[in-house]
Amino acid sequence: MSAQATPSPPNQALREMPFDEIDRIVAGAAAAADPWAASDANLRGSLLRELAAALENGREHLVALADEETFLGATRLNGELDRTAFQLRAFADAVEAGEPYATIDDPAVPGAPPAGHPRLVRVNLPLGPVAMFSASNFPFAFSVLGGDTASALAAGCPVVVKAHPAHPRLSAAVFGLARAAIREAGAPETVIGMVEGASREVGVYLVRHPGIAAVAFTGSFAGGAALQREANARPRPIPFFGELGSTNPIVALPAAIDAQGAALAKTLGASIAQGAGQFCTSPGVLLMLEGDATDAFIRQLAGEMDSQATHAMLSPAIRAAFEHGVDRLVRHAAATRITTGESSGDKHPVPNLVALDMDAFLAHPELREEVFGPSCVVLKARSVDDIVAALQAIGGSLTVTVWGAEQDDADSRRIVRQAAAIAGRVLFAGVPTGVAVTRGQHHGGPWPASTQPHTTSVGLMAMQRFLRPVALQDPPDWLTARGGVPL
Amino acid sequence: MSAQATPSPPNQALREMPFDEIDRIVAGAAAAADPWAASDANLRGSLLRELAAALENGREHLVALADEETFLGATRLNGELDRTAFQLRAFADAVEAGEPYATIDDPAVPGAPPAGHPRLVRVNLPLGPVAMFSASNFPFAFSVLGGDTASALAAGCPVVVKAHPAHPRLSAAVFGLARAAIREAGAPETVIGMVEGASREVGVYLVRHPGIAAVAFTGSFAGGAALQREANARPRPIPFFGELGSTNPIVALPAAIDAQGAALAKTLGASIAQGAGQFCTSPGVLLMLEGDATDAFIRQLAGEMDSQATHAMLSPAIRAAFEHGVDRLVRHAAATRITTGESSGDKHPVPNLVALDMDAFLAHPELREEVFGPSCVVLKARSVDDIVAALQAIGGSLTVTVWGAEQDDADSRRIVRQAAAIAGRVLFAGVPTGVAVTRGQHHGGPWPASTQPHTTSVGLMAMQRFLRPVALQDPPDWLTARGGVPL
Repeated sequence: MSAQATPSPPNQALREMPFDEIDRIVAGAAAAADPWAASDANLRGSLLRELAAALENGREHLVALADEETFLGATRLNGELDRTAFQLRAFADAVEAGEPYATIDDPAVPGAPPAGHPRLVRVNLPLGPVAMFSASNFPFAFSVLGGDTASALAAGCPVVVKAHPAHPRLSAAVFGLARAAIREAGAPETVIGMVEGASREVGVYLVRHPGIAAVAFTGSFAGGAALQREANARPRPIPFFGELGSTNPIVALPAAIDAQGAALAKTLGASIAQGAGQFCTSPGVLLMLEGDATDAFIRQLAGEMDSQATHAMLSPAIRAAFEHGVDRLVRHAAATRITTGESSGDKHPVPNLVALDMDAFLAHPELREEVFGPSCVVLKARSVDDIVAALQAIGGSLTVTVWGAEQDDADSRRIVRQAAAIAGRVLFAGVPTGVAVTRGQHHGGPWPASTQPHTTSVGLMAMQRFLRPVALQDPPDWLTARGGVPL
Repeated sequence: MSAQATPSPPNQALREMPFDEIDRIVAGAAAAADPWAASDANLRGSLLRELAAALENGREHLVALADEETFLGATRLNGELDRTAFQLRAFADAVEAGEPYATIDDPAVPGAPPAGHPRLVRVNLPLGPVAMFSASNFPFAFSVLGGDTASALAAGCPVVVKAHPAHPRLSAAVFGLARAAIREAGAPETVIGMVEGASREVGVYLVRHPGIAAVAFTGSFAGGAALQREANARPRPIPFFGELGSTNPIVALPAAIDAQGAALAKTLGASIAQGAGQFCTSPGVLLMLEGDATDAFIRQLAGEMDSQATHAMLSPAIRAAFEHGVDRLVRHAAATRITTGESSGDKHPVPNLVALDMDAFLAHPELREEVFGPSCVVLKARSVDDIVAALQAIGGSLTVTVWGAEQDDADSRRIVRQAAAIAGRVLFAGVPTGVAVTRGQHHGGPWPASTQPHTTSVGLMAMQRFLRPVALQDPPDWLTARGGVPL
């Protein structure tokens, strides 16, 4: 425990945790499940606020460590830490407002069914210990104390963090601070546990563990789909909430390009290169109607992208996968590369804009795969039909952005309808990178954007993933006297 | 079309629909998806009310046909028709109150993130065409115009009904009335379609059809689990809402037995035998603390069960499966049969009460499987520990009933906590058969009671299954002017 409670020394190698140690950690979470489910708003709120304060108090050390491990830079990492603390406090607010304890009290109606019925009180119960798989690209916001952990704790579920092997020292440091915050708040000591390991076996062991009641995952399509299969193959399958990536198409219509093409090219170029393109909401497809203005916009965008300096990618493996993905695209017979920067083979990726033939894009699924990093495909549509067909072919996406749909006309309606059919969020201004933590947010979308498209992993509704309704029929007074607080 | 629009002649054999006909029916539903999604509360409400009226107007013919095909009897079938019409109108009320169109309008907050953010309007969009698999045991309430259809239509989704092969003529008759009601209401003609066939291939073809966006299923564990695998194996997996059965344990504590043992034995005996035990909420396990009063109660219960006359089961296959399940139980070394009735081999099942050794029940999963029909296992617990262990071993169940927990003490709390951990509904009085259609209802529970334990297939919250949130960021005025009505 002490090794986990204090930051690890800088050069400690990533540890592969033996299975019996994972057993002990899950057993700790299981032991915390009943007391944490029964915790009131004061205790849950206190813990969430202590965790937020712990991050802020440890800021200097944590940001330095994060930058060493992820190369994301102090500005971004400070902002991400702010967001993570904000998020913990937003869930504290929601808990203190009673949200996880909300009930529907349906009084008895005398008489024969169907109109007559007994009293039914619908409460929400926490699912139990949640295995939370951290993401590489958000070392604070989708990691040890990120949105999944905050929302699960708010719902009354213990969390077993699967630390991401790309930032093991930061994970250990944050977990050490979390342990101290748990003691400070007086919460069950094992309400957060942490499992370490880079192997597939460790992840699978955790997902299949009988003590785990649900899984939250943010990461690659291949990794997430494999873990989802494991969750479904358990003797008793459990909910798997996975966010598996997205190509985030941007539809830039003539009205927007005519009005503010230069500004949009600048904004979009920066969005594609931001964080070396390592965002699940990074724009990966640009759809425009063919024409001179479009050609001019594409040239402007390529210029903006060529002028962007990127920082190093998260890991050599991610860097190599990016290079491979770009190669696969630009070597395709239907492709024309537009940006001109050449890779020097170092850690810094070169932004990449590739024009693809529309018919080839529609015909070849491999051209529609996400390239994780600063790469975008541009498609010139012959008509609105092409735009609709391309969106349909892309399928589930966290976001679709539609610029230039301010006029209510048939074309706008068709495009917006198709955008909403495939996305969790549809933007009409700005860029999809940057996801507000608020009540109206929905960060999900049809598969594979989310394995459970009804749910969001960002924003206040994320807590609902970890609550399950139970109807209490004719409950005794002592039980309803608890409000919606579980036993 | 005309063959579907009028009731089939009484002896028409069940039709195996060719795949190209299924294609046409799904294409019809897909064509209705956009207009039905965009339908307002008036149109949706009108259709639901027309459908309710159609059932009531056709009552005499429909109940007679249902009785011929299911043997459930006129009393039960009239009650079920009432419930089905009530349900359609309850969803009409919900639609007219604006529930599917509810939005969260989160105004922009100026300033830098995380506190500052753009405007986000969270709307709910219908998923698209729903494949709805009817159940054999509720020819009205979980069939062509049952709760799944009503809630999907209310959400704005077209429905492709998979008619149950146990009542093909009733299904055709109800579908014919539905077609007329659709025309009467002015709804898209193909907003409800119907597929017929008894083969596994027809069901799989429908679940894998690219035009289908979600599946609702009520039926057997084996059938549901197989179809769920198909839904997950699609190139683009879709939500599968399955209710796969349950053993519905009853925990009868001494306080209840002492106070009203005779009355409870009568109620429970009738509940087990009701509808020949063909309810997903039929009580299949009785848990009691050992003692003289318990032995007396078990004798009383057996007497009640022996005195129950059952009606014929739904089909020869279900009858055979019941006999097989009972045989498997009573021949087990750990079993003692308590009821004394002997099967005459006819269509009427004989109610069956079997005492099982607690340790054997905990050790052997096959003793915990649902026996569909009037059969119940009784377990004598040595302590509350045994009761908790047995509930845990049973796992996901639609209901758990706890009699005699009126006092707030440690034992009551342990039992109720464990009951809530495995169930979608916990009853403290009465019996689980009979499921009220109301807002506080939750008919689901951990796997396998439901494949999606957050969701209910009965009650007003059932509509939420077919709606998916989408966040609109900085939406144009013309779009928000629609309220939450989809484009």
